[in-house]
Amino acid sequence: MKIVIIGGGGMVGQKLAHKLAISGKLGNREIAELTLADAFSVPALSTTASFPITSVVADITNPTIAHSLISGKPDVIFHLAAVVSGEAEANFEKGYSVNVEGIKNILEAIRLTGNGYKPRLVFTSSVAVYGGPYSGVINDDFHLQPRTSYGTQKAISELLLNDYSRRGFVDAVSLRLPTICIRPGKPNKAASGFFSNILREPLVGIEAILPASLSATNFFASPRSAVGFLVHAANLDTSALGDNRAMAMPGVWGTVGDEIDALRRVAGDKIVALIKHEPDPVIEKMLSNWNFPDITSARAKSLGFTAESTIDEIIQVHIDDELDAKIPGLNT
Amino acid sequence: MKIVIIGGGGMVGQKLAHKLAISGKLGNREIAELTLADAFSVPALSTTASFPITSVVADITNPTIAHSLISGKPDVIFHLAAVVSGEAEANFEKGYSVNVEGIKNILEAIRLTGNGYKPRLVFTSSVAVYGGPYSGVINDDFHLQPRTSYGTQKAISELLLNDYSRRGFVDAVSLRLPTICIRPGKPNKAASGFFSNILREPLVGIEAILPASLSATNFFASPRSAVGFLVHAANLDTSALGDNRAMAMPGVWGTVGDEIDALRRVAGDKIVALIKHEPDPVIEKMLSNWNFPDITSARAKSLGFTAESTIDEIIQVHIDDELDAKIPGLNT
Repeated sequence: MKIVIIGGGGMVGQKLAHKLAISGKLGNREIAELTLADAFSVPALSTTASFPITSVVADITNPTIAHSLISGKPDVIFHLAAVVSGEAEANFEKGYSVNVEGIKNILEAIRLTGNGYKPRLVFTSSVAVYGGPYSGVINDDFHLQPRTSYGTQKAISELLLNDYSRRGFVDAVSLRLPTICIRPGKPNKAASGFFSNILREPLVGIEAILPASLSATNFFASPRSAVGFLVHAANLDTSALGDNRAMAMPGVWGTVGDEIDALRRVAGDKIVALIKHEPDPVIEKMLSNWNFPDITSARAKSLGFTAESTIDEIIQVHIDDELDAKIPGLNT
Repeated sequence: MKIVIIGGGGMVGQKLAHKLAISGKLGNREIAELTLADAFSVPALSTTASFPITSVVADITNPTIAHSLISGKPDVIFHLAAVVSGEAEANFEKGYSVNVEGIKNILEAIRLTGNGYKPRLVFTSSVAVYGGPYSGVINDDFHLQPRTSYGTQKAISELLLNDYSRRGFVDAVSLRLPTICIRPGKPNKAASGFFSNILREPLVGIEAILPASLSATNFFASPRSAVGFLVHAANLDTSALGDNRAMAMPGVWGTVGDEIDALRRVAGDKIVALIKHEPDPVIEKMLSNWNFPDITSARAKSLGFTAESTIDEIIQVHIDDELDAKIPGLNT
């Protein structure tokens, strides 16, 4: 089978490619070919694979280029490419161009291929589609009322994927990803970045700024879980989904205070002391819009999607996957 | 003030123009100029007005033409233009082109005008944004899960209008219109057309085909109410709306059987006998997707939007507004 990862140069895309390279299979199917597409040059994977891995620089806002990504008729397309939340808010045109026109171009390229071509498309949506106001928990028929351009663009994409699937042009699954935590590497422009920073930096002995209050809430899953969601969605029997191809992935609800408590349990007071509280009014205002209650993710769980159940586990996954099972900050 | 009606040649657009021409005002504001834009040549209004009325043939799927509609900086834009439900389902590309790209072009033309230009934009959405499955009544935070391309396109438009409003580019209000009934004139391509046909045709002594079962449900308001919604929305204090600019308009829930009972009460058995039941499997399949429960429209009602409260009233409005307060079918 042939696989394309659009956004294959991003953090989740790279981890997904790595996992596919190691396993050689997606579900029971042997992988024949993997293409990693991104807006920038994708670094070579550190893993060798039993199948060819091609990298391509591709601007999906250009319909012709979007079409070229589909011309090999991949069996599975992972669409992870996105302008992230902070950037989509700062750069209105770029956000709509990549996050709406980009996926529309991919969908049109698929539709216009015709001849029965109907690939599985796994799309990373976001819990940012829920914008409040909230009353009670978020269940699977909670109304979408995004309060950011990013959330709006994800909600529009979900609607398009539902309609293109209903019409038989594509076989899509939209995964509303929790905030990915602990995000490895450098901070990106996601407004939610600090939820990772305050855990990641102290673990390696570096001070981290907490720009929000201890009561700020979020809904988390690890990068390892995110990759697991994607692989599971690629193999899912979509006949159970009906016309609604979107669902919230499981995760762990918690406050910043919960994160810090978990960090203390896993890594101790010395590590926690590296978190410096410096409130930022812009971040606090943005958070007031997605200070959300727990998400049940009942549909996803019933379909076999799994994630961590505590923030402690999420921190431990980071230590295991990114820090060679050690806490370097303890030795600084 | 300057007003543009995009879709000014359609049934509701014409009735709205007629009402504006007669009153000379929108709320307390004198109308200085009215432009009726449509994809086809708009017939001249039968009413004379105290202000100039211009008609223009405009294809809003062309960004330059969309821009030209906004170049005079109208204070209020009514965006009624749409490819209707049956046609949007039959012609996938045309539906997205007009119903999504068209309104996106208008929004971009407004945004790019800049210099503080922020017109009121009143958009006709539809109860087709609710696609089920349903449990209980539809309240104002019912999730949007359209089951038609038309409903998808309306839901996407609502999301765009919310985001453009939140960002301060436009001051939009999206009205989820009930099925307009009794739609005067000839049937259009809306799949819901028969809900009007079975009342309208018998009232003038013509047989009408009922292609669905007596238990088929819908949610109705008269053309007169639709025009009332539009005028009320144009004058609404939108500060009460927050970031959610969309709401279901009030209407009357009922079955085809309820329609026929009302017709019997208003016009008698002779008129009802002109309805011929000839089930159409295509229509019945489509209806199974929007066989919806009652819509509370609580938010709209609290903001002063009003409609009929019985189907009898809806039929009487048609008799008064379209048939000169007579029932011609009684004399045939």
